[in-house]
Amino acid sequence: MAATYKNHIELTIFGESHGKAIGIVIGNLPSGITIDQEAVKQDMQRRAPGQNALSTARKEADQVEILSGILDGKTTGAPLTGIIYNSDQHSKDYSLLKTYMRPGHSDYPAFVKYHGFNDVRGGGHFSGRITAPIVFAGNIAKQILKQHGIRIGGHILSVGTVEDKRFDISCDDQLLDTLLSKPYPTINDDVFAKMEQVILNAKASRDSVGGKVECVALHVPAGLGEPFFDSLESHISSLMFSIPAVKSVSFGDGDSIDQMTGSEANDEYYYDENGEVKTTTNHNGGITGGISNGMPITVTVTFKPTPSIAQKQKTINIETKENVELEIKGRHDPCIVQRAVVVVEAMLALAILDMMR
Amino acid sequence: MAATYKNHIELTIFGESHGKAIGIVIGNLPSGITIDQEAVKQDMQRRAPGQNALSTARKEADQVEILSGILDGKTTGAPLTGIIYNSDQHSKDYSLLKTYMRPGHSDYPAFVKYHGFNDVRGGGHFSGRITAPIVFAGNIAKQILKQHGIRIGGHILSVGTVEDKRFDISCDDQLLDTLLSKPYPTINDDVFAKMEQVILNAKASRDSVGGKVECVALHVPAGLGEPFFDSLESHISSLMFSIPAVKSVSFGDGDSIDQMTGSEANDEYYYDENGEVKTTTNHNGGITGGISNGMPITVTVTFKPTPSIAQKQKTINIETKENVELEIKGRHDPCIVQRAVVVVEAMLALAILDMMR
Amino acid sequence: MAATYKNHIELTIFGESHGKAIGIVIGNLPSGITIDQEAVKQDMQRRAPGQNALSTARKEADQVEILSGILDGKTTGAPLTGIIYNSDQHSKDYSLLKTYMRPGHSDYPAFVKYHGFNDVRGGGHFSGRITAPIVFAGNIAKQILKQHGIRIGGHILSVGTVEDKRFDISCDDQLLDTLLSKPYPTINDDVFAKMEQVILNAKASRDSVGGKVECVALHVPAGLGEPFFDSLESHISSLMFSIPAVKSVSFGDGDSIDQMTGSEANDEYYYDENGEVKTTTNHNGGITGGISNGMPITVTVTFKPTPSIAQKQKTINIETKENVELEIKGRHDPCIVQRAVVVVEAMLALAILDMMR
Amino acid sequence: MAATYKNHIELTIFGESHGKAIGIVIGNLPSGITIDQEAVKQDMQRRAPGQNALSTARKEADQVEILSGILDGKTTGAPLTGIIYNSDQHSKDYSLLKTYMRPGHSDYPAFVKYHGFNDVRGGGHFSGRITAPIVFAGNIAKQILKQHGIRIGGHILSVGTVEDKRFDISCDDQLLDTLLSKPYPTINDDVFAKMEQVILNAKASRDSVGGKVECVALHVPAGLGEPFFDSLESHISSLMFSIPAVKSVSFGDGDSIDQMTGSEANDEYYYDENGEVKTTTNHNGGITGGISNGMPITVTVTFKPTPSIAQKQKTINIETKENVELEIKGRHDPCIVQRAVVVVEAMLALAILDMMR
Repeated sequence: MAATYKNHIELTIFGESHGKAIGIVIGNLPSGITIDQEAVKQDMQRRAPGQNALSTARKEADQVEILSGILDGKTTGAPLTGIIYNSDQHSKDYSLLKTYMRPGHSDYPAFVKYHGFNDVRGGGHFSGRITAPIVFAGNIAKQILKQHGIRIGGHILSVGTVEDKRFDISCDDQLLDTLLSKPYPTINDDVFAKMEQVILNAKASRDSVGGKVECVALHVPAGLGEPFFDSLESHISSLMFSIPAVKSVSFGDGDSIDQMTGSEANDEYYYDENGEVKTTTNHNGGITGGISNGMPITVTVTFKPTPSIAQKQKTINIETKENVELEIKGRHDPCIVQRAVVVVEAMLALAILDMMR
Repeated sequence: MAATYKNHIELTIFGESHGKAIGIVIGNLPSGITIDQEAVKQDMQRRAPGQNALSTARKEADQVEILSGILDGKTTGAPLTGIIYNSDQHSKDYSLLKTYMRPGHSDYPAFVKYHGFNDVRGGGHFSGRITAPIVFAGNIAKQILKQHGIRIGGHILSVGTVEDKRFDISCDDQLLDTLLSKPYPTINDDVFAKMEQVILNAKASRDSVGGKVECVALHVPAGLGEPFFDSLESHISSLMFSIPAVKSVSFGDGDSIDQMTGSEANDEYYYDENGEVKTTTNHNGGITGGISNGMPITVTVTFKPTPSIAQKQKTINIETKENVELEIKGRHDPCIVQRAVVVVEAMLALAILDMMR
Repeated sequence: MAATYKNHIELTIFGESHGKAIGIVIGNLPSGITIDQEAVKQDMQRRAPGQNALSTARKEADQVEILSGILDGKTTGAPLTGIIYNSDQHSKDYSLLKTYMRPGHSDYPAFVKYHGFNDVRGGGHFSGRITAPIVFAGNIAKQILKQHGIRIGGHILSVGTVEDKRFDISCDDQLLDTLLSKPYPTINDDVFAKMEQVILNAKASRDSVGGKVECVALHVPAGLGEPFFDSLESHISSLMFSIPAVKSVSFGDGDSIDQMTGSEANDEYYYDENGEVKTTTNHNGGITGGISNGMPITVTVTFKPTPSIAQKQKTINIETKENVELEIKGRHDPCIVQRAVVVVEAMLALAILDMMR
Repeated sequence: MAATYKNHIELTIFGESHGKAIGIVIGNLPSGITIDQEAVKQDMQRRAPGQNALSTARKEADQVEILSGILDGKTTGAPLTGIIYNSDQHSKDYSLLKTYMRPGHSDYPAFVKYHGFNDVRGGGHFSGRITAPIVFAGNIAKQILKQHGIRIGGHILSVGTVEDKRFDISCDDQLLDTLLSKPYPTINDDVFAKMEQVILNAKASRDSVGGKVECVALHVPAGLGEPFFDSLESHISSLMFSIPAVKSVSFGDGDSIDQMTGSEANDEYYYDENGEVKTTTNHNGGITGGISNGMPITVTVTFKPTPSIAQKQKTINIETKENVELEIKGRHDPCIVQRAVVVVEAMLALAILDMMR
């Protein structure tokens, strides 16, 4: 399996859900950046499992040890390595996985690709757990971006059919601060209660639900990205589609922009009172022609319902070549959307940092 | 600007809308492949402008001359270069573009990035015209994939609010043949008449409309792609977001899969009567865990309404730093979706060929 | 075959010795650079064949047409394409090449790799002729570097056993100007007469000779390059080993630095009268730890004797599977070193420009 | 600093000489390969310091812990991570290094590039110690290559002016076995005694010496590599020039091939008694036209004398901006050539494995 994204920034992940450790190496970071370990912890906590009835019961501190690339609290410019030791593995739960291919999971394509040698314990390297190091790297990226005045933030746009409102043109740092202070970030204060009910209902039916995360980058300068092959949208989407369970990525009003006319969808430019170039609307999500135009960059990511469900499902036994039924035991998330907000933020931060170099 | 996508396959595009020529160099193609020039012509014709009231009046034969990489009608393995000489440039229409930034276009971010030196005639290198060489490369990819039994096809999924039906699990080569024989490929025979009316209405109001293209790859073997950073979805989306005006990319039922529960969205496996592994549904669009699972790969791409419209729009004059009004003259497409089907097919074919190596 | 080098700068070459054209696409160039076409012509002329008894009789004007990326004489930032149409192909000379594998050439490994479909006429894409577009790209790079005060120059360090003196610590712009003004650049004025005799002797014996080219980059700022995997030496050597017939690359006194002790080979630092950091010697060729140290970057490249010789040679007939004898007809260079100086300069210029971004 | 080489194989290194740990992540390895940990240990031991008077007194077990990518002793296909914890750091020895720039070292260019934030303790990430994880990765590569019948081996070609004989056309697996069994591999049995004397003399004078390593890959199939930009020589040299202190890389008789005529340097082909294609000589080191030709691949790498010497040297104090004198304390290698053989082997193995995919 590939381990590495190499553009200006380099990201290399490693580890398995039930192995010794998971981690990430970040190459080409600027030197002299002071790393705020509390900020790292806060983001790690936002993704961490085992916190309540809405997520898996697996308990992991997800504490990141920095192995290299830092001296006296500052980046040295050398590859920065963050490692997280696994602690709460229950590998006995996964004994069937070598032969029973779970629907909606990577089991079958991975079996074919790796000839059955892939580590299936807890999903191995395919586990959503591998996004923990991404959150670490994303937080480092956020800290660097902040020094350039750039802020990243996200919210739960929907769970099942329950929808929050979207970011609009008034989105500012204060809104991102507010969202960051909420355990379940939504713009509408009361919408999460309904989302929670949807998740608990799914859990009660031994089922799962999906949803959408919307994320924004404020104060990104105009001029990042390229028209072909290295468009800002290409790089962001490429990273987003590395997050397990993501099935759709759109920019601005991308998933409904085809319902507008050109005269509606075109964001008109004007000079504001400070002589800065702005647009009156932001249907294009801050990117036109593949390049940032100085407006907030907004991206929406759709997560499918968690494929791990406790209901009985039909599938195949790859060893006996028989059609079989499967009941997955173990600890599952009835919904991962609320834990995924910080992962989407991380990927957006990394993509923008990458394109700024 | 970046010119190149380099993975296993290498794609390098060049040229401007009103320059001498546009073209593409394809590296790392297999040797010994017989190139069917008629098939190339047919795909070029599907994208070509100037054919009727639905597209721009610019007339271009879009005939591709192969400059290198072929001997005696077969690929040699050396870089394959296709070049298209421009013939119907009307550059006088674009004199305002140096200073008036067209809403929804790349003009402003490109001005910032290239310090005003970018070629604005007809959109320069940002023009949708640059997709013509992509169609050429895509057709070569299709011809190579066909030798591996893989078929690529697409249809207009929607124009504005008028929708065709989606590809479903019964999609086969015959359906793709039927779609290819239609000037405006839709699965429902009568839906394009309504789409056409939407486009002509937009044109009459000096406006434009957008829509969606759905594309499928049949008979792709299981095992293509990687879990992180090089997922099949990452590579396909990265190429799709290089197409001008694309704002959303989703796989399978990706844009609505969050409306399902896990028990609905999980595609259950079974052995068919030939002992082949299949799934009863294909909500995941043939990709799970970032890797192809042997089912048809389906991707939906949303195009925003063409940003070039004849209506008066507000914008800025970048030279005088004033807020101004703009009326864009010249030849425009009221809708590009029908011309874009073959471009989306090309990118899907290139992405899959790339991942097979 | 691969067509592309993609780092910060992107280079994509195409074409065959006896095809319609050869060319190069350069991506990620800065915008707004005025291109001096006379400077391009001068470098092209330095490499061009057919000028006298020392090189092949093939006559090619090697005039570069710029197809894209330039407007009003300035780079636009879009991919810059230079194309050279072939004019003096004599393909009938190469009829044996499909079956008789020339010793020292790519014929046999290319036959294996491309299953016999590779274009063998004049060496096809393997021909030294493909370095003409490299010289074009290199000249563009030199022009951009010159705006940063960086100068590139080279000389014939040796032909056979006849040696010029090396660049030493006194090397300056004036020496490079002098070298550029010579048809056969050597530092010692009289050494080329001896080299010429060696070449003509080889020609008279229907044989060939090799030699070394030394190249320097002056005024390169300290800080370019990385310790591992992206060292300045890694990038320069990687490009140099793309030049046909190069078998060795060394930096500074690299090919004999193992004959010194550490106390001799260590270049000692000092502040000069202007407070600038200098070294008293430059045995390390301006690079320590993979990173430029501000001193002149010197690189020496060894070319093997031209493999095309008119003498009878033993080889194989790949079709009949027999051991055979071969006499190569056609037009050959008894030595390519004098024509290669500008090619080595081009690669050095491209590598440094690439690392400055 | 860059951390990553990404081609078909992905290599990401991390760590500093005096940090917690050093390590490497290897991506895109094949699955199902049994890893022989004894073979790993043997190669690690060949590079390990502290063994005798010829190398630094620093003692490190250099035991590699595999953190990911292996299950039940076999590769899973997931990123394989090897980590080595540092144990014998003496950072107090390096207190001057922040301001006194050691001649011949990376100190000064790194200071400029990383603005003084780079870790200078023991050379930080620039230390030769970082080659330990390369040896680990190289051993994994060797184990995989062995399954394809490919053998890698090397010897000390020279130390100062004392030379071993070169690999010749008779080189076979047995010779490599013999070399592997020697603590200081040379082809001539008695030559190392003289080399040792040269090293001990240098040590006695508080000085250091350099030398050359020659390495061979046997039984590599014809057809690996590309003519331009991805030539086999480009990839091998790019990796070799990542090894600290390497200043020259040549293939076959590359460093003296310019002393031959074409009729001497051309390796003539013949069918041997088994109908296999061979050459009677191997001056081209198994690579012609950038592609392997089926003969042994031979590469020679020149190491400069270790820049750390105990003699007094002139240099600058980067803080006070004064010219100063420096005496480096600490533990040094009077020669690293004998420890570097296995590092060169590792890079050759990795390059070939990379190009086989």
